[in-house]
Amino acid sequence: MNWAGGMIIVLKANASDVEVRAVIERIEQMGLKAHMSRGEFRTIIGAIGDEAKLRPESVAVLAGVESVMPIMKPYKLASRDFHAEDTVVEVRGRKIGGKHLAVIAGPCSVESEEQVRLVAKRVAAAGAAFLRGGAFKPRTSPYSFQGMGLEGLKILRDVSLQTGLPVVTEVMDARQMELVAEYADVLQVGARNMQNYALLTEVGHSDKPVLLKRGPGATVEELLMSAEYILSEGNRNVILCERGVRGFDKSTRYTLDLAAVPNIQGVSHLPVFVDPSHATGRRELVVPMALAAAAAGAQGIMVEVHPHPDKAMSDGPQQLVPDAFALMMKELALIAAAVGRQLHQPK
Amino acid sequence: MNWAGGMIIVLKANASDVEVRAVIERIEQMGLKAHMSRGEFRTIIGAIGDEAKLRPESVAVLAGVESVMPIMKPYKLASRDFHAEDTVVEVRGRKIGGKHLAVIAGPCSVESEEQVRLVAKRVAAAGAAFLRGGAFKPRTSPYSFQGMGLEGLKILRDVSLQTGLPVVTEVMDARQMELVAEYADVLQVGARNMQNYALLTEVGHSDKPVLLKRGPGATVEELLMSAEYILSEGNRNVILCERGVRGFDKSTRYTLDLAAVPNIQGVSHLPVFVDPSHATGRRELVVPMALAAAAAGAQGIMVEVHPHPDKAMSDGPQQLVPDAFALMMKELALIAAAVGRQLHQPK
Amino acid sequence: MNWAGGMIIVLKANASDVEVRAVIERIEQMGLKAHMSRGEFRTIIGAIGDEAKLRPESVAVLAGVESVMPIMKPYKLASRDFHAEDTVVEVRGRKIGGKHLAVIAGPCSVESEEQVRLVAKRVAAAGAAFLRGGAFKPRTSPYSFQGMGLEGLKILRDVSLQTGLPVVTEVMDARQMELVAEYADVLQVGARNMQNYALLTEVGHSDKPVLLKRGPGATVEELLMSAEYILSEGNRNVILCERGVRGFDKSTRYTLDLAAVPNIQGVSHLPVFVDPSHATGRRELVVPMALAAAAAGAQGIMVEVHPHPDKAMSDGPQQLVPDAFALMMKELALIAAAVGRQLHQPK
Amino acid sequence: MNWAGGMIIVLKANASDVEVRAVIERIEQMGLKAHMSRGEFRTIIGAIGDEAKLRPESVAVLAGVESVMPIMKPYKLASRDFHAEDTVVEVRGRKIGGKHLAVIAGPCSVESEEQVRLVAKRVAAAGAAFLRGGAFKPRTSPYSFQGMGLEGLKILRDVSLQTGLPVVTEVMDARQMELVAEYADVLQVGARNMQNYALLTEVGHSDKPVLLKRGPGATVEELLMSAEYILSEGNRNVILCERGVRGFDKSTRYTLDLAAVPNIQGVSHLPVFVDPSHATGRRELVVPMALAAAAAGAQGIMVEVHPHPDKAMSDGPQQLVPDAFALMMKELALIAAAVGRQLHQPK
Repeated sequence: MNWAGGMIIVLKANASDVEVRAVIERIEQMGLKAHMSRGEFRTIIGAIGDEAKLRPESVAVLAGVESVMPIMKPYKLASRDFHAEDTVVEVRGRKIGGKHLAVIAGPCSVESEEQVRLVAKRVAAAGAAFLRGGAFKPRTSPYSFQGMGLEGLKILRDVSLQTGLPVVTEVMDARQMELVAEYADVLQVGARNMQNYALLTEVGHSDKPVLLKRGPGATVEELLMSAEYILSEGNRNVILCERGVRGFDKSTRYTLDLAAVPNIQGVSHLPVFVDPSHATGRRELVVPMALAAAAAGAQGIMVEVHPHPDKAMSDGPQQLVPDAFALMMKELALIAAAVGRQLHQPK
Repeated sequence: MNWAGGMIIVLKANASDVEVRAVIERIEQMGLKAHMSRGEFRTIIGAIGDEAKLRPESVAVLAGVESVMPIMKPYKLASRDFHAEDTVVEVRGRKIGGKHLAVIAGPCSVESEEQVRLVAKRVAAAGAAFLRGGAFKPRTSPYSFQGMGLEGLKILRDVSLQTGLPVVTEVMDARQMELVAEYADVLQVGARNMQNYALLTEVGHSDKPVLLKRGPGATVEELLMSAEYILSEGNRNVILCERGVRGFDKSTRYTLDLAAVPNIQGVSHLPVFVDPSHATGRRELVVPMALAAAAAGAQGIMVEVHPHPDKAMSDGPQQLVPDAFALMMKELALIAAAVGRQLHQPK
Repeated sequence: MNWAGGMIIVLKANASDVEVRAVIERIEQMGLKAHMSRGEFRTIIGAIGDEAKLRPESVAVLAGVESVMPIMKPYKLASRDFHAEDTVVEVRGRKIGGKHLAVIAGPCSVESEEQVRLVAKRVAAAGAAFLRGGAFKPRTSPYSFQGMGLEGLKILRDVSLQTGLPVVTEVMDARQMELVAEYADVLQVGARNMQNYALLTEVGHSDKPVLLKRGPGATVEELLMSAEYILSEGNRNVILCERGVRGFDKSTRYTLDLAAVPNIQGVSHLPVFVDPSHATGRRELVVPMALAAAAAGAQGIMVEVHPHPDKAMSDGPQQLVPDAFALMMKELALIAAAVGRQLHQPK
Repeated sequence: MNWAGGMIIVLKANASDVEVRAVIERIEQMGLKAHMSRGEFRTIIGAIGDEAKLRPESVAVLAGVESVMPIMKPYKLASRDFHAEDTVVEVRGRKIGGKHLAVIAGPCSVESEEQVRLVAKRVAAAGAAFLRGGAFKPRTSPYSFQGMGLEGLKILRDVSLQTGLPVVTEVMDARQMELVAEYADVLQVGARNMQNYALLTEVGHSDKPVLLKRGPGATVEELLMSAEYILSEGNRNVILCERGVRGFDKSTRYTLDLAAVPNIQGVSHLPVFVDPSHATGRRELVVPMALAAAAAGAQGIMVEVHPHPDKAMSDGPQQLVPDAFALMMKELALIAAAVGRQLHQPK
């Protein structure tokens, strides 16, 4: 691939002529063209050319250089420049991306067959397109419930067969990938593992779509770079998910960055989901943020639903009861229509 | 007012009995009840009682104390506990708050009578309820255009008379208050002045409603505390406005904290607006974020509209052209209906 | 002043030839030179020339433009390019800036003549060069102690006469400036007022040096822009002060950005102080952060000292007792020597 | 272990008596004592008792509850309450922790035997106690240099034998652990993997000390929770490393949170290091921040040194040349003496 690139180099006020020449030489050695502007107080040099030839760091270390601002597009396969049309992922007949709006719902953790079945039937009836549920749980504390593991995966599959809902579940470690892929329809890479490159590489070899969650300390560009790891291994079915970033106001657990939705859609063709449950951590904020996400143009919503949140083994306060979920779906349908998104229709 | 309050005091692992007793004594001196729990590794003391008697700092400084977590509600008049019903502000027959959704539109800066008139007519026709425009402009640089001042205020009033749109405009300094209040229907306190207490006190004496913008480095609680300054001076018509907070991802200018909308509405009765123009700084994100704000339950949207953004004297890239604004209003009407908000209807 | 400037314009992948030409024309209309690089997927245009001619916003709004990255130095008088040597401010024979290290100490709020005198004598003996104390207090809550006002200013002056310590105290509103300047040797502009432009302009007219604190949501560049407001009004004695910025980890009140010290010193000639008391909010972190600030090259430290922190009317938990301050000064002297800073010597 | 714990529950203004009773019942079911305070506007309930019985989530979901503030110490083995004395880790006769100050130096990436040897000899002579160098490199882009792998490990071991410097190098994936542990003296877990629980568990089984870097989006508490994962698997030799967190000011790459050093040391017995190279990303800030870290009481500094930073395969602009490193070590020795830290002495 051949991309146009460039950089602007600001020299220090006291940069000598010898230093200025050294910078220009370095630029020309790279095969780029240098253009200079000298002011009373400082000198600026522009360098324009083939991005593959750009090595900003090698200029930044030269004497007399104050700063270098490069223009490079660090991701390629994830970029809309490379692939102009929206990617639409198809999972057992359900479409993700483009003009479609898909809802993934289910409990935070798989706790029992009954719990999952109860929730799955209700969310399916209300219009959810996918079932979520954690079998392997990444927990901040080593002393917290770590998930049911393989048994949880089996429950998810059984309930999936009963309800027709494809399963989205998390894979936490490269060594688990094959096992999880046997049971899951979509592999989830969690926020804490967004830059676990061994895991990204592994799911890049899978033929299952990957739902990649943004790390709470990661920029949009870093999220797209992590998607690029998966795409560059051959797996082109990557779904991105915003789930809140670190902010200074602790009245919500994270700060949900909803502007990331149109922001990403402008530069990438990949579908963008939003998880309002983890972002806010508080039930009464989940529904407004789900509706806002749809209005912002998200292509999917991922919501936690539990039959008895007060008895949940994890994240009780952020899980909706099935009735609240059903109400939310009605409002969501109106919002989807307002912004031209097709919501999955239950049969 | 009498509020219940409390605090939990964690003692250091090696706190002596004398130190523990001193803490309990201090609590009892305050007129609170102390309850102790001793574990193998540390001791915790709970203190519960009248909030007015709580002085957490005076406990925090005692020997042997590791940390103190107080529960106090720092704002009163702004709190929904104090005033359960939504505040509805009325301005020349237009309602703000409760189930109403009001749109404020207009250019970033007043640049000429023609510019303001042109925009005002278009936005009024499209359903805006208020006209905005800066006459006094707070600019990061002393070398940037600082606004037309008094002349700008006169233009706003003239156009207001022609179009019927009430005027929202910024007051930057306590000394300007009277002058601005002569021309404006709603006084705006900008984000940079959210904690300019002299100004807050001054607008607290005005009989004009105040639109108070959240500072980009301010928490929701601090915003409510600043509202409390205005309310406690006697002005009960305060409108809050989220306009983006500082975040680590520079692909948008600020991070729009939309969850603040239902978050504030849960604890306060004051109307909550959103300004997607300043938050994102990029035109293509303004419309999705305006729609998302409405879906999140905002009671108003403040959007910048300019007839020729490429010639704007400030913030060109974030201003919509009138046609784009009119399209947005159509989608906004659908969203408002979906979430049960009444949008102001142009005659 | 004539400064070299530049910008790089990235065009959208599907930008048409007409759009590309329009961008180049706009650049040439500004009197700049345009340099183009076309890649397979996108086109980049560089523009280099006189900074005064740069209008990035006017390019950003053109059709086909994805993003514009301008290089402009928004501050001039504050820049080391403009004034290469360190600014050294002299106040009643005490030097601030350059190789000098000055310590400002005193209580958060002035509470009584006795309190201030007691502290002032102790900190003077331990090597403090200046006395601090708030007479007008900016408080988050309208219900908190707002300071002793004029009476507080008089106490500060009296104690200053007794101890020889020049006084640093805050001015909160433009209308107070003259009054405060009568009593203070250095005018402090608080963090909340860093972008109160009316106040900045007013202190810019004073002949007293100004200590400008960084707002907790402000970038280093914004701090320097606010300094520029003061400098451009004619007051060249501006002292900057880092006091912690908003961060996501609430185990400290703010995140002290110590790298800002050498960072600012690289681009500006103004003295840089650090206030570890407000930044951390916890006494046990104040001393290590004061020492760290000196090691980082700060030209001053501002520390709160109170004779009885447990009875302080504000910020008790962050104030040192005089003995702890004296110990800190001994360690500080060693650090100052290690990094080549001259600490003020008490007589 | 038996720890004292507690929580304060704030009820909604309109909570009914039935709801209040339900909360108290739930608290008593947990085996805790409930204490109530009723105010005019709201009710607060305190619950104090054995931390192991505390289940705040199960209260938070009850009707009428506005918020729950729990006091729990989520980490145990990492806590100073559990282990009062500083942990001192010994690696081939070199001490880490307590009053010792150890410097780890070396190139970002291992690029050749000659490069590593050249750097190692110089940094050993200047007083570094450990050699660093990346063989497996976690890179944001899949297209960047990913490290020399096994060959890099062999180079590190060879140079270690020649210079006597123990080796610190990163392990990126649980499957690599055994291989890396064969060559390394200290296993580094990188910032991106701070919450890769599979990896944490794996290094918890190793007998090699682990240097655990704080993720840029992680709180101090989360860092300690990740340490707890390693400690609870049996490996008690964990070294923590602050390397900058996400901040809103992009003039430095990350915001170095130096107050985290005394902050962590107050609550944990584990040694705390600082990496100023990754935190700032700019060479001219590395030295001041290294000195500041020592002044703040850090027990170690990790600095990147490269013989020719302009030719480095990664992170050139932040790597020091050996001469600059040697100068820094001289200043560091003075700072260490000032704050009572013993710097490792080269023979």
